[in-house]
Amino acid sequence: MISIAVLGYGTVGSGVVEVINTNQASINKKAAEEINIKYVLDLRDFPGDPVQDKITHDFEDIINDPEIQIVVEVMGGLHPAYEFTKRALEAGKSVCTSNKELVAQHGLELLEIAKSKDINYLFEASCGGGIPIIRPLNSSLTADEIDEITGILNGTTNYILSKMTTDGSDFDVVLKDAQDKGYAERNPEADVEGYDACRKIAILSSLAYGCHVDFSDIYTEGITKITATDIKYAKKLGYSIKLLATSKKIGDKFYAMVCPAFVGQDSPLYSVNNVFNAIFVHGNVLGDAMFYGSGAGKLPTASAVVADVVDCAKHLHRNIMMSWSSKRLELMDVKQVESRFFVRKAGSLTATLSDVEAIFGPVEPIGLADVTDEFAFITPEMNEETFKEKAKQLGGYISRIRIKD
Amino acid sequence: MISIAVLGYGTVGSGVVEVINTNQASINKKAAEEINIKYVLDLRDFPGDPVQDKITHDFEDIINDPEIQIVVEVMGGLHPAYEFTKRALEAGKSVCTSNKELVAQHGLELLEIAKSKDINYLFEASCGGGIPIIRPLNSSLTADEIDEITGILNGTTNYILSKMTTDGSDFDVVLKDAQDKGYAERNPEADVEGYDACRKIAILSSLAYGCHVDFSDIYTEGITKITATDIKYAKKLGYSIKLLATSKKIGDKFYAMVCPAFVGQDSPLYSVNNVFNAIFVHGNVLGDAMFYGSGAGKLPTASAVVADVVDCAKHLHRNIMMSWSSKRLELMDVKQVESRFFVRKAGSLTATLSDVEAIFGPVEPIGLADVTDEFAFITPEMNEETFKEKAKQLGGYISRIRIKD
Repeated sequence: MISIAVLGYGTVGSGVVEVINTNQASINKKAAEEINIKYVLDLRDFPGDPVQDKITHDFEDIINDPEIQIVVEVMGGLHPAYEFTKRALEAGKSVCTSNKELVAQHGLELLEIAKSKDINYLFEASCGGGIPIIRPLNSSLTADEIDEITGILNGTTNYILSKMTTDGSDFDVVLKDAQDKGYAERNPEADVEGYDACRKIAILSSLAYGCHVDFSDIYTEGITKITATDIKYAKKLGYSIKLLATSKKIGDKFYAMVCPAFVGQDSPLYSVNNVFNAIFVHGNVLGDAMFYGSGAGKLPTASAVVADVVDCAKHLHRNIMMSWSSKRLELMDVKQVESRFFVRKAGSLTATLSDVEAIFGPVEPIGLADVTDEFAFITPEMNEETFKEKAKQLGGYISRIRIKD
Repeated sequence: MISIAVLGYGTVGSGVVEVINTNQASINKKAAEEINIKYVLDLRDFPGDPVQDKITHDFEDIINDPEIQIVVEVMGGLHPAYEFTKRALEAGKSVCTSNKELVAQHGLELLEIAKSKDINYLFEASCGGGIPIIRPLNSSLTADEIDEITGILNGTTNYILSKMTTDGSDFDVVLKDAQDKGYAERNPEADVEGYDACRKIAILSSLAYGCHVDFSDIYTEGITKITATDIKYAKKLGYSIKLLATSKKIGDKFYAMVCPAFVGQDSPLYSVNNVFNAIFVHGNVLGDAMFYGSGAGKLPTASAVVADVVDCAKHLHRNIMMSWSSKRLELMDVKQVESRFFVRKAGSLTATLSDVEAIFGPVEPIGLADVTDEFAFITPEMNEETFKEKAKQLGGYISRIRIKD
């Protein structure tokens, strides 16, 4: 029997308990041991709940109990999650987590402690919710040198963009609807400004490239400026708009970026809708691969956490996780990153197109039947700095969205 | 250093050598050992080829060499692949393979030998080419009880169906084009009749459900009868036609089936085109997940084989593969499997619709502008047996295709 402790009895924590109870027999068989939840740490009591007798308010009960071999940290936030995780690992207890903030901020250090103790720090649920992606990167794509990861890594923003596309509504309206449905937080900043996706692409990139990617180095732009009209243009051109978190090798350097982008129908990411997430990976021998599934939600996330528990149980005294080196991955200056840009320009086509073409070269103007006094065009490929200069010469624009080629 | 032998220097075998040479440094790092190709077994010589000095014509050289710890079987076919694999495993050498025929036929026995010797028999490349699916089923989706696997598991047929869809051409024309391009074999039977997909779904199902699924028990229907007109109807109705290999739990039983099907736009399989493969998996707590990538091709397949080599190297004396029990999975009689059916009926709508409705109940007739003297309709959900009876009452049909809901 392997005893575990669950830190935090919120959405994911109660999901972990539910998954272990629901699939007890098959989980125990796969772990080759009986998994026993001995403690649930929470500040609250849960009278009448099946876990009421397991509740403790004191982390010392857990850290001092030699029977506890695996700790599930699903509290979220940096503190005290960081201190608890570090103490658990130092005490020789493996830790599984869904806490992307903590992994992005302190993953390197925590992985190294786990390695030194021959135990594991696993975080499958930190990126892409229930989608298996961390373990495939760690143990399936080992024959490849990964040169690109592009993910739809945030369910809230993907739901909002999908809903804006089907309903033709504007961002604010859909955000409110998403909040009412519980798909978006009351304070949605971490999602809609791209910060959540930024942490996730930092984790995936660190793991895939083996060097540390600091999330604070990643250029991040959210979806708050996307309008119903932008989406109308996208539809007309056969694109969908997605919040993409990308890291990609160009020559011997990498760039990393989170921003909304036009995605074409040839991309498997094109039709990833609603709260689903997907991670596209390109390997130098594998070519294209994509992992798709529920990027959030109580049970999918708990499924990934419990799969980590099973893996820890199967490898109680054997470190299985690649760690990434403390060497920082040198990221290209974002100014040098190249793409094509979709641009909406105010003014009548007849009066303004020649100005546009004088600056950007020949372009194909795009109009919408019900939108007057503006038109759109797509630039040739150019870097961010050049685009900025040319946009300045143009005297600004209504909106500009990068095109993912 | 770990010495390996590659059995067969055909497409996949030469791919394995190429992948190991291309990504040598990163592969050795991930394996934590230097991977050294000591022998390549082939009947032919390859003068001038980098492997010419490693070529042997005699399997005894390999089996009797105690330095060889991992054998890569990429010969294909049942014999002598079966005998070589069995002898290698019995001699304590792990085996990695892309040979779906062998795994479907003898996987159970070979996995048990590997287990008894504390070594590994790995076959990531046998299903879905480069797509990581065997390892995720084995070690990622462990918190779930899997209740459905539906895959586009054959690149040749998916290419043909995609091409028929974009070009509007008939099966024979596109098959010839696929043969000319090297996407289809000169003898395409195993692909176009669904036999290849059948073996793959048998392997995936055995692994996911832990009981033996005999491929010969699986109802299998190929794509040879699909016509350009069927595809026109599918398009009009917003479906794509895919060759699906499915196994699914209904109550406490399972059914398994390979057949072309109408796939709706809500399914992530809808837009899997050309030679790409994808495997949709549903878990009781995870919900929907999908794994997408190159289902065939030299380097993608070799990428999966080499990832198995790395896994074997990391677990030289530790069995890591779930084996499935010898207990046969009880499959439902296919007669009892329910679906909706798309049916094309000869005759004019006005004269024939009342006959159709007398048998199938009210239906929505579907016509194509340029196709006269026939129409189509979609039945309510019914089992195969009922459909067969009703179709007989109707006096036959031009074609019928199941709808994947």
